[in-house]
Amino acid sequence: MKCTKCGGKAVISVLQHHLGLCKEHYLEWVPGQVARAIQKYRMFAKTDRILAAVSGGKDSLSLWDILHRLGYQVDGLYICLGIDGGVNYSNESQRLSQQFAAQHGLTLHVVDIPQVYGESIPQIASRTFRGRGAPCSVCGLAKRHEMNRLARDLGYDVLVTGHNLDDEAAVLFSNTLRWAGGFLARQGPVLEADQPGLARKAKPLCRMYERDMTAYALLRGIEYIYDECPYALGATSIYYKELLNKLESDQPGAKLNFYLSFLQAKEGGLFAPQADPDRAQMHPCPSCGQSTTAEGLCSFCRMMGGES
Amino acid sequence: MKCTKCGGKAVISVLQHHLGLCKEHYLEWVPGQVARAIQKYRMFAKTDRILAAVSGGKDSLSLWDILHRLGYQVDGLYICLGIDGGVNYSNESQRLSQQFAAQHGLTLHVVDIPQVYGESIPQIASRTFRGRGAPCSVCGLAKRHEMNRLARDLGYDVLVTGHNLDDEAAVLFSNTLRWAGGFLARQGPVLEADQPGLARKAKPLCRMYERDMTAYALLRGIEYIYDECPYALGATSIYYKELLNKLESDQPGAKLNFYLSFLQAKEGGLFAPQADPDRAQMHPCPSCGQSTTAEGLCSFCRMMGGES
Repeated sequence: MKCTKCGGKAVISVLQHHLGLCKEHYLEWVPGQVARAIQKYRMFAKTDRILAAVSGGKDSLSLWDILHRLGYQVDGLYICLGIDGGVNYSNESQRLSQQFAAQHGLTLHVVDIPQVYGESIPQIASRTFRGRGAPCSVCGLAKRHEMNRLARDLGYDVLVTGHNLDDEAAVLFSNTLRWAGGFLARQGPVLEADQPGLARKAKPLCRMYERDMTAYALLRGIEYIYDECPYALGATSIYYKELLNKLESDQPGAKLNFYLSFLQAKEGGLFAPQADPDRAQMHPCPSCGQSTTAEGLCSFCRMMGGES
Repeated sequence: MKCTKCGGKAVISVLQHHLGLCKEHYLEWVPGQVARAIQKYRMFAKTDRILAAVSGGKDSLSLWDILHRLGYQVDGLYICLGIDGGVNYSNESQRLSQQFAAQHGLTLHVVDIPQVYGESIPQIASRTFRGRGAPCSVCGLAKRHEMNRLARDLGYDVLVTGHNLDDEAAVLFSNTLRWAGGFLARQGPVLEADQPGLARKAKPLCRMYERDMTAYALLRGIEYIYDECPYALGATSIYYKELLNKLESDQPGAKLNFYLSFLQAKEGGLFAPQADPDRAQMHPCPSCGQSTTAEGLCSFCRMMGGES
C-alpha cells in the first residue's frame, strides 16, 4: 500500500477514511483531524489557557503532544490516585507524565490524592463501599472533582481530556441502552461551564478511533503506560467497547456513524429541553462550591466527610 | 424446577421474570402478559373491531389466538406475496393461516398481491430494483400499503401485528445506531391514525421475548411455518437481533430494559416535538389516498406505476 499523500510506502491504513499513510503524513494527519474537531465544535482558541488532564496513557499524552504542536497554550494535570495493583500503576503513570512534560519543556501540575486527602482511591473505596465491587465510581467522582477544582483555582479557560471515539461511543452506548435522558442530553464534545464551580470541558479526540491514537503514540515515540488500570478488568465500559468493536468489524465506520449521527441529531433538536432535568436543579455545594444535584453537600464532599 | 403458580412440574423457565411454569400456567401467563400490555398502552377495547395481520408464523398466529381467547373481536388478514424461494413459502404460510382460521371458526381476509397487481413481490423487486439486493424494501412497502388499505376499506378500528420484543428491540437498535430522529419519535406500541388513509396500529406482543412466543405456539399446538422468508437471510435486522442476543445472554433482561426504558424516556418527554418532521409534512397520495411524505404519488403508487 502506498501513502495517499506522497506515494511513498504507507505504514498505516486508516480504514474509515480509506487512506494509506506514511509515517510522516500520518503524524501530520492526526493533528489535522484534531484541529478540525476543535474548530467544528468550537472547543477553544489560541488565546485560551488550556489544562490537559493526563493519566500517562496513550490518549492523554498524545492529546497534550498534539495541542502543543498545534500551538495551543496547554499545561498538564496529573492526578495521583495511589493505585498500586501489583504493577505500581500510579507511580509508573506519574513518571511517564513527568517525563513527557520534561522532554517537551511543559508545565505539569500534580495533585497527589493520598497526600491531599490522607487516603488513596482504593482506601476511600474500601471505607465507603466496604469492598463492594471495584473503586471505579469513587475514582471517577474524585477525578472529576479535582479536575474542576484545579482548572478553576489555577484560572484555566478550559479543561481537556483524552477521551477518544471508542470511549465516547461506549459511554453513549451505555446511556442509550438505559435511555438515560439527562446523560444523553449532556454528552458531547464540549460541556459548557454554565454552572458554578465547574470548568468548561472539551474532548478534542472524540472523533479519533482508539487504534488510530495508539498508532499516533507509537509512531510519535511517546512513551506511555501500556497497562490498563488494574481495577478496570471486567468493567462494563470495556464490555461495551468489545460489543462495538464487533459491530465495527462487521460494519466498518459504524462506531463513528453512531457517535456523529448522535451529535447531529442532538444539534438538530432531537432532545426536548426538559430532557436534562438534573442540570436545571444544580446548586453549589456549601463546602467546595462545585455545582451538584445532591441535597446539601456534593457527593465528593460527603464521601470525604466519611459518609458511606 | 417447579411451577411458581401450582407447584407442579415446570416445563418452562421465564428467565426475565424469574418464573418457572407448568404448561397450563404458561398458556395462561402469556395471554395475561399480553392483556397487561394492551391495557397499559391503551391499544384497544372489547368493543373495537380488530384486524390481525397474519403471516403464518408463530408470532402472528399466536397473537390471533391470544386476542381471540381474551375475548376480542379479531379477524385475520393474510397478504400473499407470491414468494416461492424453493420452499413454496407463500403457499405454505397461507395454508397454515387458513387452517388456523378454520380450526377456530375465525374470519380470514386474503389479499393476493400477484392477483390484485399482476406481479409477485420478487417480480416487482426485479423490475424496480433490477436485481439490486433482496426485495425486502419492496415487500415492506407493499405490506404496509395493503394493511392500511384493507383496515380502512373493511372498516376496522385497529390493525395489530405480531412484532415481538426481539423485533422491536432490533428496530430500535437500528434506528438508534443512526439516530434516526423521526423513526425514534414514532416507534412505540401504538401508532395513532392521525393521518388520512392510515390505520391505527398496535403491537400487543411488543414486550414478549421471541423465545417465549415460540414456546407459546409450541405448547398451544399452533401449527406455524418454521422457515424464515428465504429473502431474510443476511438481513441487517437479523444481525442486530444476534448482537442483542449476545447482550441479553451476558446481561439477562437487557433487551427488555432497552425497549422499556426507551418507551419510558419517550413518555417522559425525552424527544422534542420537532423530532419527527416527516409526520408533520404528510399529505394524502392523490392516487390511493394514503398519507405520504413523498412529493405527489406515494412510494407504493409510484412503484406500481412502473417507476424505479
